[in-house]
Parts: sequence; structure tokens; C-alpha cells
Amino acid sequence: MKEKKLVEEITSMEEDFTRWYTDVVKKAELMDYSSVKGCMIFKPNGYAIWENIQRQLDQMFKETGVENVYLPLFIPEHLLQKEKDHVEGFAPEAAWVTHGGDEELQERLCVRPTSETLFCDLYSNIIHSYRDLPKVYNQWCSVVRWEKTTRPFLRSSEFLWQEGHTAHATAEDAQARTIQMLNVYSDFCEQVLAIPMIKGQKTDKEKFAGAEATYTIEALMHDGKALQSGTSHNFGDGFAKAFDIQYTDKENQLQYVHQTSWGVSTRLIGALIMVHGDDSGLCLPPKVAPVQVNIVPIQQNKEGVLDAAQGIKQALLDAGIRVTLDDSDKRPGWKFAEAEMRGVSLRIEVGPKDLEKGTCVFVRRDNREKTVCGINEAASMAKTLMEQMQADMLERARQHLQEHIYDAHNYEEFKEIVTNRPGFIRGMWCGDVACEEKIKEDTTATSRCMPFEQEQISDTCVCCGRKAQKLVFWGKAY
Amino acid sequence: MKEKKLVEEITSMEEDFTRWYTDVVKKAELMDYSSVKGCMIFKPNGYAIWENIQRQLDQMFKETGVENVYLPLFIPEHLLQKEKDHVEGFAPEAAWVTHGGDEELQERLCVRPTSETLFCDLYSNIIHSYRDLPKVYNQWCSVVRWEKTTRPFLRSSEFLWQEGHTAHATAEDAQARTIQMLNVYSDFCEQVLAIPMIKGQKTDKEKFAGAEATYTIEALMHDGKALQSGTSHNFGDGFAKAFDIQYTDKENQLQYVHQTSWGVSTRLIGALIMVHGDDSGLCLPPKVAPVQVNIVPIQQNKEGVLDAAQGIKQALLDAGIRVTLDDSDKRPGWKFAEAEMRGVSLRIEVGPKDLEKGTCVFVRRDNREKTVCGINEAASMAKTLMEQMQADMLERARQHLQEHIYDAHNYEEFKEIVTNRPGFIRGMWCGDVACEEKIKEDTTATSRCMPFEQEQISDTCVCCGRKAQKLVFWGKAY
Repeated sequence: MKEKKLVEEITSMEEDFTRWYTDVVKKAELMDYSSVKGCMIFKPNGYAIWENIQRQLDQMFKETGVENVYLPLFIPEHLLQKEKDHVEGFAPEAAWVTHGGDEELQERLCVRPTSETLFCDLYSNIIHSYRDLPKVYNQWCSVVRWEKTTRPFLRSSEFLWQEGHTAHATAEDAQARTIQMLNVYSDFCEQVLAIPMIKGQKTDKEKFAGAEATYTIEALMHDGKALQSGTSHNFGDGFAKAFDIQYTDKENQLQYVHQTSWGVSTRLIGALIMVHGDDSGLCLPPKVAPVQVNIVPIQQNKEGVLDAAQGIKQALLDAGIRVTLDDSDKRPGWKFAEAEMRGVSLRIEVGPKDLEKGTCVFVRRDNREKTVCGINEAASMAKTLMEQMQADMLERARQHLQEHIYDAHNYEEFKEIVTNRPGFIRGMWCGDVACEEKIKEDTTATSRCMPFEQEQISDTCVCCGRKAQKLVFWGKAY
Repeated sequence: MKEKKLVEEITSMEEDFTRWYTDVVKKAELMDYSSVKGCMIFKPNGYAIWENIQRQLDQMFKETGVENVYLPLFIPEHLLQKEKDHVEGFAPEAAWVTHGGDEELQERLCVRPTSETLFCDLYSNIIHSYRDLPKVYNQWCSVVRWEKTTRPFLRSSEFLWQEGHTAHATAEDAQARTIQMLNVYSDFCEQVLAIPMIKGQKTDKEKFAGAEATYTIEALMHDGKALQSGTSHNFGDGFAKAFDIQYTDKENQLQYVHQTSWGVSTRLIGALIMVHGDDSGLCLPPKVAPVQVNIVPIQQNKEGVLDAAQGIKQALLDAGIRVTLDDSDKRPGWKFAEAEMRGVSLRIEVGPKDLEKGTCVFVRRDNREKTVCGINEAASMAKTLMEQMQADMLERARQHLQEHIYDAHNYEEFKEIVTNRPGFIRGMWCGDVACEEKIKEDTTATSRCMPFEQEQISDTCVCCGRKAQKLVFWGKAY
């Protein structure tokens, strides 16, 4: 059976999750490897997911007053060096431009790994008075970090993202924006990507180079590993002092601004694959699926079948649904398998027997549930099923997350869980970086975050047994 | 008068068009200079124009079957060198990455100046059979060309653009796509940017490095200079041979594909400024204006005024209009001048006297025409006025273009026109590059294109007097 073969070409998730992932990104035609080391090609089916993410997230940004801008790709070396922690964090993985045409440049230019320094340079020029605040700018662009080991969507030398950079009059305003954007990310991931998030603060060890505080959203993949899916940083006035960004307040006093930055990237596509995918390939929530409905005519040479299929397609198009009609000469089973591999949310089958009854058959990608529906009601049924599917996928992911959170009260328990039960481990922490390092050394698990919803599940640090300070989510992570 | 001062801060167009342009891009807050030589910052008012261009043009692309992708920022040197003419054209202005972190790279990477070579590399991997054709891919990205002299939006070391790259089974298909995309550009510029275009083919001297034929759309700026606004190239099978892109046809024979590429860039923003702007600043056609309507309450402290203004704003928002309400404490005249400077298409004034009559006053940005309208009809009136304004702006630009096309029948006429009458010069050409070079040397004018609508306005070449082959549009250009 040809259709069986298509599916057999991908490794089963349970057998080898890593190979399953690599198979899916290729077979679903999301990406391709390029001739440039560590850089990937976003193919139409992969890039369209990113476009759907961009459109909906950008809308949410703008509702909070974000304005889009575009800053240069290059950072002069002296600018990168202005903030000490920041340059230490990013210089080791910087790509350096040294020549323009045949001439050697007087100063090396770093291909942006992130643009804090450029935004600070801009803000120091355009912020003068309290009237100029806040500045809430964002850009959609690509960034480069010279990675040694790479993995499609999860870690590559170049990736696509958005980076928001804001400047505020007060520390309170900056903190409020930091949390506001983390919540935008979390809401977006739940409502659009159907991925529930753990929200919290990073420990000092894990925070962003140059930040006062870093907040994160962490998701749980199907294999029980964590994926940091977005971060929001509060810089306080550290960068403002390094770049001399001052404004005159209402009392005519010079003050430093307070800043934030926040970003999500094409990693989110990796999260979609690893949260929702199955052994038939990609499974996408309708809100981000490049194709929401694929229509497969059965016995398409029989009179009226193709006409009916085309009629359904037009009705769905008119209703604003992203729909395709597969009238190629492949067999229906093969068409089913291909669309399932590519993550199309719904399939409509329509053949001579359906036509007699004036009906067609919907099949959901996530649970294969079939629904028979009058041809004239296809568009409204598609909308109903997509809503249900979107909600069910979130619910299923939420359940998977809940079922894979374990409490550890001491180090024995911790090590037992980390070895046998993939997932998040909740464990108390004394606050000492030495314990984070020991846990990582012993188990490869890292502190994912100190969740906003703190609880005292034990009095002592899960690692050293000293007095506990904070509840931490630990886990192995991508 | 403060409002007078704002306008006086920009140079008059007639006095010094170059300074007027620079003043407008700064005062309208379209861009800012950056610390990176030759690179500019797109500020919110400038970037929002680009977003409006992207959204509408991308829609037109997709209607013709274009799929978006994203390819790496870097091109390995050996890949750039595969097509001889191409590398000669682009290497002199390439930016080279030589180091990743502390390590020197084994092979230099060029920051993409254009991505023909990467697309060819991809196509050679994914095209095998006639079933894989056509491939009609496009990407929105930034490119880098190390320019010595730069000018906001018109020429900078980094700029934003889209680049379409296609592969076809036959030469005919490639030629059809080349012309189709040129027509998409031309339609977009007329219908959305209100800028009429001259369409034609570039001479061999002016064609793209590696192309068999380059087609162009050329616009006329207010000062009578030409601006190349978009190009579409037919590569024949030249790149396919250099990159070995072959497919098996229906007769099971190996064939080379035929390719095209086509692009427009943020130059179009420069065209908008120089075609529609005036001494009050930027003037934008409603379809691309970041803000289409700005509401200015008059005597806003009087009872009911702000409420009425907010009511109008809500009605316009509900109608999908991009609207702002300026309730700042500035004087109305100042608000008018600011919005005019930024190119807002329409203004609505509403004050106590209007409220008594239940009306508000519209003022068009392009011709200052006033229209009194019932408050409840504001949204529909805004739509009507925007449509009229869009059409009138195109008509005015068309008239300006027509009035600045001159025929030259011999070199004396040519030189007289080029000196005294800024605009396009129509003149016959013998086909010899020597004449193009002589004309450029003598007058700085260049051949803009051989228009699709050919006419024989004289029997002899406007430069050398030998037998004429082609009608050419000549002009000084940005």
C-alpha cells in the first residue's frame, strides 16, 4: 500500500523521538538543509506557519500599543561592547563582517545576535523629555548566533524572531511592560498554538546577559522535555547608564529610562511539532495551519463529484477558510496520508455515494473523528469543527502537561524522577547557584523557572537540604 | 506662529529638492540615521508604509500562485562564484563574514546582496521531474550592498525588499512569468501607490548581472528625475546550466529549467515621497497611509467636543479605517501641520459650532478641499473622500508624467531638453552601447528602458545619426 509507505517513512515517536522529529520536518516539507553551515531553509509549508504566527501575534502586540520599526542588521563592535555583561554573553557566538567589497573595514561589524545595543543607541538620540516616553518598539527580523550544534527550528545559526525593546519613565512602568508581554506570549501560545505554558522567572544563572530579571514561558514537549518558548527581560536602568539614555522629567530633572526587551522565535514551530505531532506526521491547530481544510474527491471521474468538490471549496473560501482541493491523479488514501503528514486540520471527502444523499464527510486530523454533513452546511461545519479541534488540542496538551509534573522532596526522589519519568519536576531550591550546577552535572536537568504561583512543598532545598527559598520547575530541556 | 515654524523647518521643493527630500524623511519621522555607515533606521511612520506595501503586494503575489519561503542570510563564496556574470556584478559591493566567534571561517560568507545563487542551490536539490514545476517562490527580507554614497530609501547599504525566484519547464513559461510579475508591480504602483509607470525592457548595458533580459518599471519624480522602481528578469537557462538544475520531462528526457527573478524594495517609499510630497511634507495615498484620518477636536475643553470626537473615531475604527484622535494639549493649527507633515490623508475637525449643527469638517491632505458632513455619516464620507483622493492623486501624477515626456529627434534637441526640461526624453537608438555611453558622458542621462509601446519617431539614432533600431526612454535618474 502506497499510503502506508508514506507513513512508514517516518520513524515512530516512541521508538526514537529525535529521528521522528527530523523525519517530520522533512516529510511535512517544513524545511530543508542549506549549503550554509547551521542555517536552514524555511519551505512554503513551514514559512506559512510563521506567517500565521506573525500576523496574529503582531495584532496582539499592536493592541497593546507596540509600534514596528526596522534597525540595521549590523552592530559596530564598539557599540556591542558598551554593556559589559551583554558583550560577554554574545561575543563568543557572533558572526563578524570584516570586509566590504575588496576593502577591509576600519571597524568590525557584528551580524546582530539581538539588538539591545542598537535600540539603546537609537533611544539615546530620540528620547529627551518625559513626553517622549514610553517608547514601545518591535521588529520582526532574523538574527545570527554561531551555534556549534544545530537542529531545525530549535537551534540554528540564523533564525527568525521578533524582538521588542521598550523604554519607560519609571521602574514600575518597565516591570509592568515586562509582565504584560510575557502574558501576551502565554495567551497567544494557549489561544492560537494550543500550547499551555508554565510562567515564571529565570534564576540569575539562566537570565539574559545584561538583564536585571528574565521571565519565561516554558512548554512541555511530547517526550517530556521542556522548551523555553519566549522570554521577557527587565533591564532596569543598566543599559540606560551604559548608553546614557536620559530624559527630563516633569520637574525638569534628568532621569535614566528603564528598559525591557522580549522575544519569541521560529522555535515556536518546533514546539508545535513536538506538542501536537503524532506518528502520521504534523498536526496543527486550525488557527496556525497553512491549510485548514483539504478536500479529497472520491472517484473523482464520476459525474458531479469534482463539481461538488469545487462548490464546497468556493463556499469555504468565501467563508475565509484556508482550503485546498486535491484533484491530482493520486489515490485517495495517498492524498489522505499526505495531507495528514503536512498537518492539515480537516479533511472533507466527497464521492458519488455522498452526492446521492447531498452530504460530505469531515475527518478531523487530531482524533480521526468523522462527521457527516450536508454539502450546503460545509462551511459552517468546518468552522464548528475547527473551533472544537482548537479547544480539544489545548485541553489534550494541558492534560499531558499536568500528568507530567512531579514533586520531588529530596535528592533521591529528584534523581529517581529525572531518570524514570520525563516531565517537569517541582522542587524547592535554596537559592545557591552551586545547587543548580550540581543538579545539571548529575542529571542534565536545569532550572526552567521559579513559577509565579509559588508554593512551599517542602522546607528544604531538593539538592543540598538547606533552607528552601523558592519553588523551582526543573527539567531536561531542548 | 508655531505651526508656521514647523513647516518652515523644511526647505521648499523648488528651492532645493534634495534638501526638501532629506528634511521630509526626517520631519515626517520616516527614518533616522544609524551608527552603522550607510544603514538607516526605519521609524514607525516609515516602517508602517512598508507594512502596508507588503500586505497588499503579497496578496497580489499569492493570487498568482506565489509561495513565500525564507532562505539563509549568508552565501558561501563558492556558491556566489558559480555564475560568472553574476559574481562580477555583485562581488565588488559584497559584505564578507570571515569570523564566527573567535574562529576564522574556512570559507568566507557573503551577506546576501540578492539570492539567485541560494535559490538555484535549493532548486537543484528539490526539482527532479516536470511534476515539480513550476516553482514560484518569494521571500521578504533585507539585503546588503556595500554602497559608497547613500540616500534614505533610495540607496543604502542595507535595504528591505522582496525577491521572487521561479523555475519553469519551458522558455515560454519563464517569459510569461517575467512579464506577469512586471505587470503585477505596475498595477500595484498605479492602484495602491497612485504612481503611473513606464514599462519596458532594459538595454544590455543596464540589465541585471546574469540575466538574458531585464524588464523595468520607471517612475517620474516631482523634480523630473526617473526612479527605477522594480525589475523582473528572465534568466533563460543560464543559471540552470551553472547550477545543474535539470528535470525529467514527460518523454523522460533531461531538460534544464528556465528561471526568472523579480523584486521591489523600500525604494518605493522614496517614490511615494518624491511623487506626492509638497512643501507641507509628506502626502500619502490613503491605501498606504499609516494613518488615514486624524481627528482634531477644536476647543476640546468645551462640553461634548471630545465625546463627539471619540464617537467619530469609534465609527471609523468600526469601518476598518486607520484613524487617530489628537487630543494632546497642542494648538489645533500645530496639530494640522504635524499630521500634514506625516502624510495623513484626511483630517476631521469638530468643535462646538459643528456640534450645534451635528456636523464635522473633512479636509483632504492633497488639495486642502473642505467637506462638511453629518457626524453620523463620517465613516462613509471618509471612505468616499479616500477613494476620490486616491484616484485624484493618480490622475495628477499621470498628468505630471505626461507633461514631462519630450521627444528628441537629434542630438542637439536631446541636449537642449536634458539641460532645460527635466523629465523623460523619448529618442531613437541605434542599439550600440557606445551611444549610451556617450549620452551618459555628455549629459548624465541614461537609457531607462525600451518601452513596450514602440513607435518610430525618427529614422536615425538620436546620438550618432545611424539607422535607428529602438525607441528608448532616456533620463537622469536616482
